[in-house]
Amino acid sequence: MRYAVLGTGTVGRTIAGKLAALGHDVVIGTRDPQATMARTEPDAMGNPPFAQWAQHHPEVSVAPLADAAAGAETVVNATSGAAALEALAQAGAAHLAGKILVDVANPLDFSRGMPPSLDPVNTDSLGEQIQRAHPEAKVVKALNTMNSAVMVDPARVAGEHHVFVSGNDEDAKKTVTALLVSFGWPAQSVIDLGDITTARGTEMLLPIWLRLMGALGHTDFNFHIQGARAQD
Amino acid sequence: MRYAVLGTGTVGRTIAGKLAALGHDVVIGTRDPQATMARTEPDAMGNPPFAQWAQHHPEVSVAPLADAAAGAETVVNATSGAAALEALAQAGAAHLAGKILVDVANPLDFSRGMPPSLDPVNTDSLGEQIQRAHPEAKVVKALNTMNSAVMVDPARVAGEHHVFVSGNDEDAKKTVTALLVSFGWPAQSVIDLGDITTARGTEMLLPIWLRLMGALGHTDFNFHIQGARAQD
Repeated sequence: MRYAVLGTGTVGRTIAGKLAALGHDVVIGTRDPQATMARTEPDAMGNPPFAQWAQHHPEVSVAPLADAAAGAETVVNATSGAAALEALAQAGAAHLAGKILVDVANPLDFSRGMPPSLDPVNTDSLGEQIQRAHPEAKVVKALNTMNSAVMVDPARVAGEHHVFVSGNDEDAKKTVTALLVSFGWPAQSVIDLGDITTARGTEMLLPIWLRLMGALGHTDFNFHIQGARAQD
Repeated sequence: MRYAVLGTGTVGRTIAGKLAALGHDVVIGTRDPQATMARTEPDAMGNPPFAQWAQHHPEVSVAPLADAAAGAETVVNATSGAAALEALAQAGAAHLAGKILVDVANPLDFSRGMPPSLDPVNTDSLGEQIQRAHPEAKVVKALNTMNSAVMVDPARVAGEHHVFVSGNDEDAKKTVTALLVSFGWPAQSVIDLGDITTARGTEMLLPIWLRLMGALGHTDFNFHIQGARAQD
């Protein structure tokens, strides 16, 4: 499968690396590949410069957003939430139409201080905004409720825990569920919450996730819905 | 211990019944006890009329909000979120000052259709609003993240799962933790998230809780933070 992963931060790198390790063709999309590759300083989050990561992942190519999306069968939005709509507009509606668009971003708003708040929130979500902006894409919100290391290696957290999917297209959710299983998520750990409006609920997990990170002092944790098994 | 439980809905009844069963003195506070006792129809949520419950719980008395709060050592806010600030104002700041005020309410806003949204949300919380309105009370947000039956009988959900406490007063949180243990919560199932601003995170669990109720078809579930044990 040919994947485009949009975003060069930790989440984008982690997902791109995992997809490549699973044997997929992976292109990372970024606004300006030349500028991205030229950076020699750690990014705002303290990650090593992208070029350093790219050097160790020669199997992952880098391309402008539109080129990356155009060549892909499935697109993963791993941009920062605040940049997502603009990045997807640059990727191009025509290049997203008919494709599964896995949205793993959270609309964190750092403008009002720490900890970040969410924008949009409550009566809207980033997942819904993306679906409205790209009605012909099959948006599936997933993997936005845990640290990126856990996204692609759920066994980092011992015991059962869950990953949620939200989206309007049932087949797209099934395909994304299969992708999650290939990442190491047991099939029964995937909870389908319903349509894309349920992304409000998963994005609104971020505030407690951030507080738990503070209280626990690490990021190798995840939400488990105890009692969910009664649905089986 | 003398408790006032403010609110005559399912949550108030359930907590009052549990406290009484544990041997505490319990008064339920309501705006107009005479009107509450006179109702013969199920309430808006379909619960049987309060008088019917009261008849089966003669050990729990009913009083106006101010009288209930005045006579109590600890107050539990189990009103509907939208009514909480007004009910606590009626209870009286002087009757809350210096006391632990356990806030189990969620600020659900049904005015914009179903599922309900939250108001306040994101950059504020009901827990914080209550603490600001009653600076001399020791507000501890707790038990607002699960069905009321699970609040007082956590063993209804098999396996480990968590209850969160948020508040500015460390001793008050310790006292509430002991209360939770008396309800059946193992001590290690109580996660102290930090000050009262962390109530934003627990109140923002409601949207996914409501969607999970829909997806699972029952309410005997709860959040478990898998990996939290690494803090031990």
